[in-house]
Amino acid sequence: MPFPAKTPGTPKAQVVVFGSGNFGSCLADHLGDSQHDVYMWSRQAQLVSHFNLHHRNKSYLKGHVFSTNVKAFGPELPDADSLRNKDVLLFAVPTQGLREFLEKLRPSLNCDNLPLLIFVNKGIEISTHALTLEIITDTLGADAAKASTFISGPSFADEIMRRQPTSVSVASLSHEKAQAAADIFHKPWFRCYTGNDPIGLELAGALKNVYAIAAGMSDGLGFENNTRAMLITRGLSEMTCIATAYGASPLTFLGLAGVGDLFLTCSSPTSRNYTVGLRLGQGEKLPDIINTLGSVAEGVSTAKGVKKIIEEMKIDAPIANEVYSVLHEGHSASDAVQRLLLLPPSRELVLPKGSGPYAQRLLRKLGIEESPKE
Amino acid sequence: MPFPAKTPGTPKAQVVVFGSGNFGSCLADHLGDSQHDVYMWSRQAQLVSHFNLHHRNKSYLKGHVFSTNVKAFGPELPDADSLRNKDVLLFAVPTQGLREFLEKLRPSLNCDNLPLLIFVNKGIEISTHALTLEIITDTLGADAAKASTFISGPSFADEIMRRQPTSVSVASLSHEKAQAAADIFHKPWFRCYTGNDPIGLELAGALKNVYAIAAGMSDGLGFENNTRAMLITRGLSEMTCIATAYGASPLTFLGLAGVGDLFLTCSSPTSRNYTVGLRLGQGEKLPDIINTLGSVAEGVSTAKGVKKIIEEMKIDAPIANEVYSVLHEGHSASDAVQRLLLLPPSRELVLPKGSGPYAQRLLRKLGIEESPKE
Repeated sequence: MPFPAKTPGTPKAQVVVFGSGNFGSCLADHLGDSQHDVYMWSRQAQLVSHFNLHHRNKSYLKGHVFSTNVKAFGPELPDADSLRNKDVLLFAVPTQGLREFLEKLRPSLNCDNLPLLIFVNKGIEISTHALTLEIITDTLGADAAKASTFISGPSFADEIMRRQPTSVSVASLSHEKAQAAADIFHKPWFRCYTGNDPIGLELAGALKNVYAIAAGMSDGLGFENNTRAMLITRGLSEMTCIATAYGASPLTFLGLAGVGDLFLTCSSPTSRNYTVGLRLGQGEKLPDIINTLGSVAEGVSTAKGVKKIIEEMKIDAPIANEVYSVLHEGHSASDAVQRLLLLPPSRELVLPKGSGPYAQRLLRKLGIEESPKE
Repeated sequence: MPFPAKTPGTPKAQVVVFGSGNFGSCLADHLGDSQHDVYMWSRQAQLVSHFNLHHRNKSYLKGHVFSTNVKAFGPELPDADSLRNKDVLLFAVPTQGLREFLEKLRPSLNCDNLPLLIFVNKGIEISTHALTLEIITDTLGADAAKASTFISGPSFADEIMRRQPTSVSVASLSHEKAQAAADIFHKPWFRCYTGNDPIGLELAGALKNVYAIAAGMSDGLGFENNTRAMLITRGLSEMTCIATAYGASPLTFLGLAGVGDLFLTCSSPTSRNYTVGLRLGQGEKLPDIINTLGSVAEGVSTAKGVKKIIEEMKIDAPIANEVYSVLHEGHSASDAVQRLLLLPPSRELVLPKGSGPYAQRLLRKLGIEESPKE
């Protein structure tokens, strides 16, 4: 069925997309397709020249011919002159490399008059337990962080490219900036819903991968629908508790970046994290899975960070603990499930009182007293 | 994989189960399997005699041999004498007939010394927009309602019978009673999580069927994963808004009775409501679907009730409106989707301020000021 012909008008913007991976190039294409002028930066010279000649990404979404409104550049970072007239900088850079990337880019940025900053990376910086919001604060300052916007939601890239109706959460501590980012991205087939909880949005995107592994394990062990629904829902409760201690609003987990993305990731055999869990449940060993998977599923390392975080913040998260025990302590998935099932009955959702140390550190850096709540 | 051998001990209880349908007889079996003495009431004399001879239900879960701890009786309702020594009354009676049923049963009940009351029916009484909590208040009094417990969650009956690990929410305005019901039901393969929001739990169970129709429509129209995740998540937001106006806590929708059951219902081709949506999306007409489906999917009538409720309470619920337009105004599913996609961008979750008229009516009858919130 075709998408609607009528689309609300969006003012044309000059957009730089940093990153040419799967999601970055997908969003570059969507923005080009939405009549913005898009400059997609890549660290690979060969990708740049090939893209500008053929409008194709050699490494990702290979079958797709990109909008001619997208031009590639790189591997040099842009200088201050070339960024001066840009309206939007979109960062699709892996979280673990983001701090260094922003430090290198900083000399080209006028921090007193920044363009709209949009971040779509997910995950927690392993060495610091910092969210992207904190990495921005450390590198570009608290004002830049407070004006930054974050996009997440149930959005497989290949479906976006085919204009399959998709929706995302757009969050920022600044309502105006969230609205501006939504205006840039919104189309009938790419619907934007705004919110004011970037902490919850970021954590949802990171944590969901751990619980997608759990859902995969359940399927791999041969459990059925009731059990998968239990693991996903109890996982969502754990995510909500962890994030609340980080200063997020629990209601964010009812949204597209929370339950929406978790639902997508846990239901899809194409998800790498789900696949790792499925094969662990079927009795394979992690090193063998990683070898044949070709790339490391993000949840495998996130599970380590989460283990530390829940211990330090004293949060009851038995599923995350058991995913860790299977991934990193050699326990069998079936033993892990037995332990989970033998837990006594409990209250369904007991949110932690007060914010944990990482939330307090972040809020102090941002210079705000209260955590942002819906 | 087998369920755990060790199970926490539960004190043996004398339980009457009213209703011998799919879910009622499944729960009777689970309770019998958990070493309780179970008396299952049926309005069909033939079912009673056949069950007691063969330990099988002629109409539901036909392949299953029931626990010998379950005995059937009926069609006469039990008298006061036979209920005197019972610890638990479990009601698995359809919501639309519950008021009359409780009125008939009332002479046999000692309302000053009631056994534990557990309700597993779902839905809203069509003629009054009343929840079960209100029906109990009207028939057995406010004290009985405040001591009643409600069970809901992602739980296909056939999987429970095979001891596939399952989990449910157990809610009551009385924490002690919720705990008591959880203690009766809890097993490693049937995990109970307690909460204090029966209003949210009841509404989640009723409303989810409307959104399962929407998810089915999306699949029937050929939309893919991003779109289904959008509809389910935005549907969950609508459910949360409606229920909040009814006096529920939004956090209930993060739980097993909320997102857990919605997820199960929307993902399963065996769900009648999902199937209605799927076939509407494929272009079939509702009367043809109902004719071949054999039974009416509950969401079809619930959609009518919800349409009235959202109009009267002025709640923005575009998906529920469009499901109604397809079911009851002859619109095509594809036109309905176009209208949804053309809606402007918006805030992700704006909970209604204050309680609507049905919440106020219920709270007044219960004699409580504030709505129960987590």
